[in-house]
Amino acid sequence: MADRPQPAPPAYVPTERTTLRRLPERAAYDRATVYAILDEGFICHVGFELLGQPYVVPTGYARVGERLYLHGSSGSRLGLRPDLPVCVTVTLLDGIVLARSAFHHSFNYRSVSVLGRTRAVTDVAEKAAALEAFVDHVVPGRAAQVRGGSAKELAATAVLALPLDEVSAKVRSGGVKDEPEDLGLPYWAGVLPLGHAAGMPEPDEGITGPVPAHVSGWIRPGTVRR
Amino acid sequence: MADRPQPAPPAYVPTERTTLRRLPERAAYDRATVYAILDEGFICHVGFELLGQPYVVPTGYARVGERLYLHGSSGSRLGLRPDLPVCVTVTLLDGIVLARSAFHHSFNYRSVSVLGRTRAVTDVAEKAAALEAFVDHVVPGRAAQVRGGSAKELAATAVLALPLDEVSAKVRSGGVKDEPEDLGLPYWAGVLPLGHAAGMPEPDEGITGPVPAHVSGWIRPGTVRR
Repeated sequence: MADRPQPAPPAYVPTERTTLRRLPERAAYDRATVYAILDEGFICHVGFELLGQPYVVPTGYARVGERLYLHGSSGSRLGLRPDLPVCVTVTLLDGIVLARSAFHHSFNYRSVSVLGRTRAVTDVAEKAAALEAFVDHVVPGRAAQVRGGSAKELAATAVLALPLDEVSAKVRSGGVKDEPEDLGLPYWAGVLPLGHAAGMPEPDEGITGPVPAHVSGWIRPGTVRR
Repeated sequence: MADRPQPAPPAYVPTERTTLRRLPERAAYDRATVYAILDEGFICHVGFELLGQPYVVPTGYARVGERLYLHGSSGSRLGLRPDLPVCVTVTLLDGIVLARSAFHHSFNYRSVSVLGRTRAVTDVAEKAAALEAFVDHVVPGRAAQVRGGSAKELAATAVLALPLDEVSAKVRSGGVKDEPEDLGLPYWAGVLPLGHAAGMPEPDEGITGPVPAHVSGWIRPGTVRR
């Protein structure tokens, strides 16, 4: 197609496989919600199947436009098999919901699942860009302040690409949802907010200079510095 | 067997499927490590396959001895199908490893994967105990201070059990591991520690009493109160 690339529509189209069967009111398909979750997370969980056994592997990732890059190291079960049907899930935990009834205990969370088939990234330039994206995904601005990947290192890194085509988000937020008849029970109820906390940077041996701004000033939605 | 139950041996036996193919020095099979990770986590990611497509679903869980209970709500894809081969993974993120080279960037993390087949918990007493375990897993002591599950609520909750038989942990800890020839490069390197942070409890509407000790005093390895 010689057409100019079209801007992505505001929402993903739900498929039978990405339609939530339970609590469908928690589903979201708009790109703004999906992008925010993917960009806030640090790691994803990649699910795939080998010889009838599912595996779920945590790994690094980065979103580049309408594509996820997955860090699937060469030699691992995940890295060995491109063109694999996968489900990649990123989950952010926002709070513990403490209800008056055990049944209504819950978590506030936001998650995204992406279904599709991985493509092995073999083009060296694309792989180098993905490696930079992994670094900048975690600490923006960092990729410009490190030594980039050598040819040998790029060869040793398996990178998988997954298009953001079949995508759904699931979000639970807000307060306690107890049964009306339980509201008078003498039990404390409320939400305990949760997020990430980053401690003080611990310089490697031999590092004597000041902590650079991209590290000392690093902050991320959902993360506090302490 | 009429024999008395034997104490669990100190380590799980690796199988072909739980032997790490890459970076085997990061593997751990001892129960102490596995229990600590499972007990510190809040949610797990359950991987299973339906019609050739893997799914990875975040959900609540609790460890009771040598068994995991999974919260698989009735009506969800997961809850609908007991006796399913699954992989349940719990991952704790402990830090961001910022190396001088892009290639050696990493995370400090601890994860556990459990392979096996789920059993649907149908016995009402076992299901009630599992529901209590879910609550106490997140906030110890909480289950005694809420209304327990009614028969209707227990019927609406699908609980799956998974034995801790085929189990592996994976742990990356410590500092930066750069190439010797990169140590003189003018790039900052070090570790940014990460953990969870819990905010102030937010009482539900109508709650006027003090925050009880099991909430105000709640703390967990890997979590700071702020």
